[in-house]
Amino acid sequence: MMHIGACIASLLGQGGSRRYGLTWKWIRFFKNDRDRRDLVTCGSAAGIAAAFRAPVGGVLFALEEMASWWTSGLLWRAFFTTAVVAIILRALIDVCLSGKCGLFGKGGLIMFDVYSANISYHMADVPPVLLLGVVGGILGSLYNFLLDKVLRVYAIINKKSVSYKIFIACTISIFTSCLLFGLPWLASCQPCPLDSTEDCPTIGRSGNYKKFQCPPGHYNDLASLIFNTNDDAIRNLFSKNTDAEFQHSTMLIFFVTCFILSIISYGVVAPAGLFVPVIVTGASYGRFVGMLFSSHTNLNHGLFAVLGAASFLGGSMRMTVSLCVIILELTNNLLLLPMIMIVLLVSKTVADAFNGNIYDLIMKAKGFPYLEVHVEPYMRQLTVADVVTGPLQVCHGNEKVGNIVHILKTTNHQGFPVIDEPPHSESPVLYGLILRAHLITLLKKRVFLRTPVRIGSDAFRHFSADEFAKKGLGNVDKIEDIKLTEEEMEMFLDLHPFTNASPYTVLETMSLAKASTLFREVGLRHLLVIPKRTTGSPVVGILTRHDFMPEHVLGLHPLLVNSKWKPLRIALPRFLKIF
Amino acid sequence: MMHIGACIASLLGQGGSRRYGLTWKWIRFFKNDRDRRDLVTCGSAAGIAAAFRAPVGGVLFALEEMASWWTSGLLWRAFFTTAVVAIILRALIDVCLSGKCGLFGKGGLIMFDVYSANISYHMADVPPVLLLGVVGGILGSLYNFLLDKVLRVYAIINKKSVSYKIFIACTISIFTSCLLFGLPWLASCQPCPLDSTEDCPTIGRSGNYKKFQCPPGHYNDLASLIFNTNDDAIRNLFSKNTDAEFQHSTMLIFFVTCFILSIISYGVVAPAGLFVPVIVTGASYGRFVGMLFSSHTNLNHGLFAVLGAASFLGGSMRMTVSLCVIILELTNNLLLLPMIMIVLLVSKTVADAFNGNIYDLIMKAKGFPYLEVHVEPYMRQLTVADVVTGPLQVCHGNEKVGNIVHILKTTNHQGFPVIDEPPHSESPVLYGLILRAHLITLLKKRVFLRTPVRIGSDAFRHFSADEFAKKGLGNVDKIEDIKLTEEEMEMFLDLHPFTNASPYTVLETMSLAKASTLFREVGLRHLLVIPKRTTGSPVVGILTRHDFMPEHVLGLHPLLVNSKWKPLRIALPRFLKIF
Repeated sequence: MMHIGACIASLLGQGGSRRYGLTWKWIRFFKNDRDRRDLVTCGSAAGIAAAFRAPVGGVLFALEEMASWWTSGLLWRAFFTTAVVAIILRALIDVCLSGKCGLFGKGGLIMFDVYSANISYHMADVPPVLLLGVVGGILGSLYNFLLDKVLRVYAIINKKSVSYKIFIACTISIFTSCLLFGLPWLASCQPCPLDSTEDCPTIGRSGNYKKFQCPPGHYNDLASLIFNTNDDAIRNLFSKNTDAEFQHSTMLIFFVTCFILSIISYGVVAPAGLFVPVIVTGASYGRFVGMLFSSHTNLNHGLFAVLGAASFLGGSMRMTVSLCVIILELTNNLLLLPMIMIVLLVSKTVADAFNGNIYDLIMKAKGFPYLEVHVEPYMRQLTVADVVTGPLQVCHGNEKVGNIVHILKTTNHQGFPVIDEPPHSESPVLYGLILRAHLITLLKKRVFLRTPVRIGSDAFRHFSADEFAKKGLGNVDKIEDIKLTEEEMEMFLDLHPFTNASPYTVLETMSLAKASTLFREVGLRHLLVIPKRTTGSPVVGILTRHDFMPEHVLGLHPLLVNSKWKPLRIALPRFLKIF
Repeated sequence: MMHIGACIASLLGQGGSRRYGLTWKWIRFFKNDRDRRDLVTCGSAAGIAAAFRAPVGGVLFALEEMASWWTSGLLWRAFFTTAVVAIILRALIDVCLSGKCGLFGKGGLIMFDVYSANISYHMADVPPVLLLGVVGGILGSLYNFLLDKVLRVYAIINKKSVSYKIFIACTISIFTSCLLFGLPWLASCQPCPLDSTEDCPTIGRSGNYKKFQCPPGHYNDLASLIFNTNDDAIRNLFSKNTDAEFQHSTMLIFFVTCFILSIISYGVVAPAGLFVPVIVTGASYGRFVGMLFSSHTNLNHGLFAVLGAASFLGGSMRMTVSLCVIILELTNNLLLLPMIMIVLLVSKTVADAFNGNIYDLIMKAKGFPYLEVHVEPYMRQLTVADVVTGPLQVCHGNEKVGNIVHILKTTNHQGFPVIDEPPHSESPVLYGLILRAHLITLLKKRVFLRTPVRIGSDAFRHFSADEFAKKGLGNVDKIEDIKLTEEEMEMFLDLHPFTNASPYTVLETMSLAKASTLFREVGLRHLLVIPKRTTGSPVVGILTRHDFMPEHVLGLHPLLVNSKWKPLRIALPRFLKIF
């Protein structure tokens, strides 16, 4: 749902899709970086709000995990989006309560309602809950570790060919089916409880007491968990007054199964989620711990399952406020809030000692250049001049068309500094920054000048603002597609009117850490490095996101790898490093 | 509570108070800008969490309204703080339930519990709720407008002398007492309901049915609201199954009284809150609207009171997510969430058309230079060179002590550019930025040089890191307190080791709007403006927060006042402008 929401939002941010006839005129106003970014954030917020019927949790999740920049404007927009989601959800629930929607008619605004007016817990309940948090944190980081390794293996296999992808997916699907059907044989049959409000055993429909292969009047508790949807399994695990329903061994088998299956299922070509599997796994873990401590605590097993889900979520996703609100909105148990907060804090803290959060690991495994909020400590020892690399490609204010084509063809930079040189100015002066996309737009229009003169804002006559709008991902024009004649190659372009005349700049002696802060906080794509003394070129280099990535910096300065400043992480034993 | 929390946090951020013996050694690590800022944010979050027993709401309020920079680190810290608050609150509630705490023993973790499992509302209930939101937004902005005017009047009176302050406070106190005692005469006596679960009328204790001057078997409904604490009044207003308890006129009188009294009470010397009065006023407004629509809606008056409180909060404080969560944590009614979200959105949107949020207005009235997140549109038409003013004071890398003292005495700038000039360098070069506080620390130490030479990091021998820590508000050293001899005045200081060698810089042609974004997002205090061409001085000027304030910019460029780019605001009619 999160992915779907983000995809729809991204489509809107590209101005719709011309191929499928999904364009409206007003959407074109969103065709820029900032709006596209904000739209994707709002879209994912809407997805979470719809998936968990948690509108406030959705906003917070999007802000805490998705958004790189928090502004009050974005907060307002995300809140508006999820409010619309909440209202439509509520209206559809109203419509469906009349029974016209089949299976969708069930359930209200709260998915796993565990409300109880007189829940009580005391100081004696804190130690088991702390233990739950610590072990949950360790399990969560182990989950992240294994998931990361499995994803890397899949990535290697998936790269080979499409048939490999489908083969893996099918294998895992068949393996899962066989395993899940076989597992309930491990659990012994239980006699039906006498005071059950439900039919026992349940046959032919969704319910608590699955018969599986048991004699009449008996049920198989492992089958009750496995032969249900994940949602029903979570509801069973969270439910109160069911402390006698499950056996210790059942819960342990279910936990291990979920843990392993959710890891190997994620990353196959079929879309598999993270959130719900983590909740199921965490809930079974929590319920198992609750069973172990049942004689020492006032909390029932259902509440332990809620806390277990919280600890496992905290250990693997590492969020605080948003998970807290999502769990609150899922379970409607406000009185348990202090306990949920403890568990989330403990599990996040413990897990952070081992590795990063799961989304960061996945992004890293996919090779996206994600810029961390915190700069690496060794960056304080470097200046920006230390990481500037490669020959700098500059354009002149009045540039020959042939030169522009050459620069565009021989590099893949997205932005070029524009400088004015004598005789057009007294001394070489930085004029600004021009984007590749804009240069290509200029070349496509073929409005060239015979001599290098400045034409000022007259140049805009030939263009509409739309032509400089951010293109959709698939529609980017390529320099190779533009064919120019020999004569045109000898003509000139006045770049001044199309140049960003106030790009962000740093002096070459600026600390890399500080430049990184600037780059990250202001949300830049290019940062110009200017010299301290004016000797020759007025610009030393240009920094992009890749120049701030630890891999690049450490590649240039290998000695810093052994720098004494390291993030606080517990080192894994050597045998685990083999993976 | 918010204020107390922030004060305690600020005290910790200053390294405790030496005067009252409240210092610990480890606190000194917080003696810097960033930690002090974060501590105050966490302190206010803790205050709100404690006041409303709303730990998650407290975090969000602090982030949405208090913090200028949101980072995931700050989120984690605020969450940790309020988790501790929640746990201690919960533990104290446990202790007090045994009845040992007198009045404090009452109440659980939820202050105004209006939970109902089977609350129902449909499309037909949306129009009255929308109307509630629109009118609530108008009332909220009117509240802000009047509060602002009253505060400005008080500010003028309070400035005169202490006796005026006390006089106003006493006058308002006596006026409030008389008014509140006199008002219940306006309401007629009601016969006690026959099926009441409480004693009716209640005499001599807190309760729903106050007797006031009524005959036996009757109660005065206005007295029931007025002769209670605000908390009890809110609980009465929010309660369900009390639709027949209050009359229309009572609710209207109570609303108007609260509206006026809360405005004139805020800003006197006695500490008066904003949050609870706004909730009371909003709840009475909402309940009044609920009474008007009672025949057209499924929602009971208590829920209308909750929505009224939300709309009035939204109209005056203009927050979204945090108010939503606070109301949720106060009332424990998750099913009402979609309605609360609509109301908050509508009232905030309506109110934003008239004026700014109440905290911004108060800050402006107090004259604090608060930098808005959004830059003013006319700033795009200016470059930073257009707002640089005044003669620039620079220090040299090796500066004569006399010159430093002169600069410090004749200006009140907090930071000075440091430049190296021939013969110490080939050409004039910007070395960095030095702070006034650090210069004073250097002068106090009196480790001067006879000749202008660079001594490098040897200079640190004479200092400990503590001496450069940020001083507490009352402890700032003044240049006037440092007495130097004539001989010392002729000696030199090597400023290089103490200079921030990588200050943030912008070129003089940088757009003011972009420089403002940099200043705001990175959280700067000083921004150096450097020239495009190196002619003479390597630095053109220095920008501080004041240079970005609209008053300063418009003072320099009065023509921009009539710029066609204005924020979307509905202009007030002329007669209201007289205030």
